Amino acid sequence: MSKRFDTPQDAEDAFYDAFEAKDLETMARVWAKSDEITCIHPMSPVLQGREAVLQSWRQIFSSPAKLTFLVHHKQWIETEDLALHVVEQTITEEGQDRQPVPPMAATNVYRHSPQGWRMVLHHVSPPPPPVQVGPNPMHS
Amino acid sequence: MSKRFDTPQDAEDAFYDAFEAKDLETMARVWAKSDEITCIHPMSPVLQGREAVLQSWRQIFSSPAKLTFLVHHKQWIETEDLALHVVEQTITEEGQDRQPVPPMAATNVYRHSPQGWRMVLHHVSPPPPPVQVGPNPMHS
Repeated sequence: MSKRFDTPQDAEDAFYDAFEAKDLETMARVWAKSDEITCIHPMSPVLQGREAVLQSWRQIFSSPAKLTFLVHHKQWIETEDLALHVVEQTITEEGQDRQPVPPMAATNVYRHSPQGWRMVLHHVSPPPPPVQVGPNPMHS
Repeated sequence: MSKRFDTPQDAEDAFYDAFEAKDLETMARVWAKSDEITCIHPMSPVLQGREAVLQSWRQIFSSPAKLTFLVHHKQWIETEDLALHVVEQTITEEGQDRQPVPPMAATNVYRHSPQGWRMVLHHVSPPPPPVQVGPNPMHS
């Protein structure tokens, strides 16, 4: 029997655990069984639908890098059917001496379904450059 | 009397109109009257609360650039109290001969309140580089 996520946070915990463990089966269970799901990796095009989204995780999990995550909530809005968590996720790579990548902002959205809470959006931005020059909508 | 946004799309239309017109007053009305609002401009740190968010728009609007937007919906989930729109926004700058910037992915979230629908999150990612090398959670 597959585990049910009774809260948005249960789904989020499973998401980051699956990411660390490179567990594609759990990752597939975290995402809603719908083609109305969207995943935006840093500097990557918008991916939509289960096939494209899960294919991207298969590709990420094929890397030998051993990643660990630190997740810090920045915004938290939960309603009966939809939940928005904005987080800063800090990724560190085991065995790497280089400076850790600065935290990246991620928007995670979960939707309630008869199968419990499932992820419908994961949108990650690359971290800002070290020297900040103020917001620029063209950033070019 | 300030205009009420009866649907999430009304608020979104006003958001992009205000962005094009550099209309800070309308922009301030689009955002929820709450400190639980978040704005993530491309390559910029996470901004939270009305003061920081509106200050960033004041700074963006102070640029002489005349921008126009083309907005294409990619994902659309609306519930009674919370609405998620993922869009691709293409910005062009008047009088510029250079190649237009490729579309940027934006997540816009709206929340229902006694004052109508208001924006609670605007999260924009920079466009992917011209040559795509596949999703990479470290992107470094």
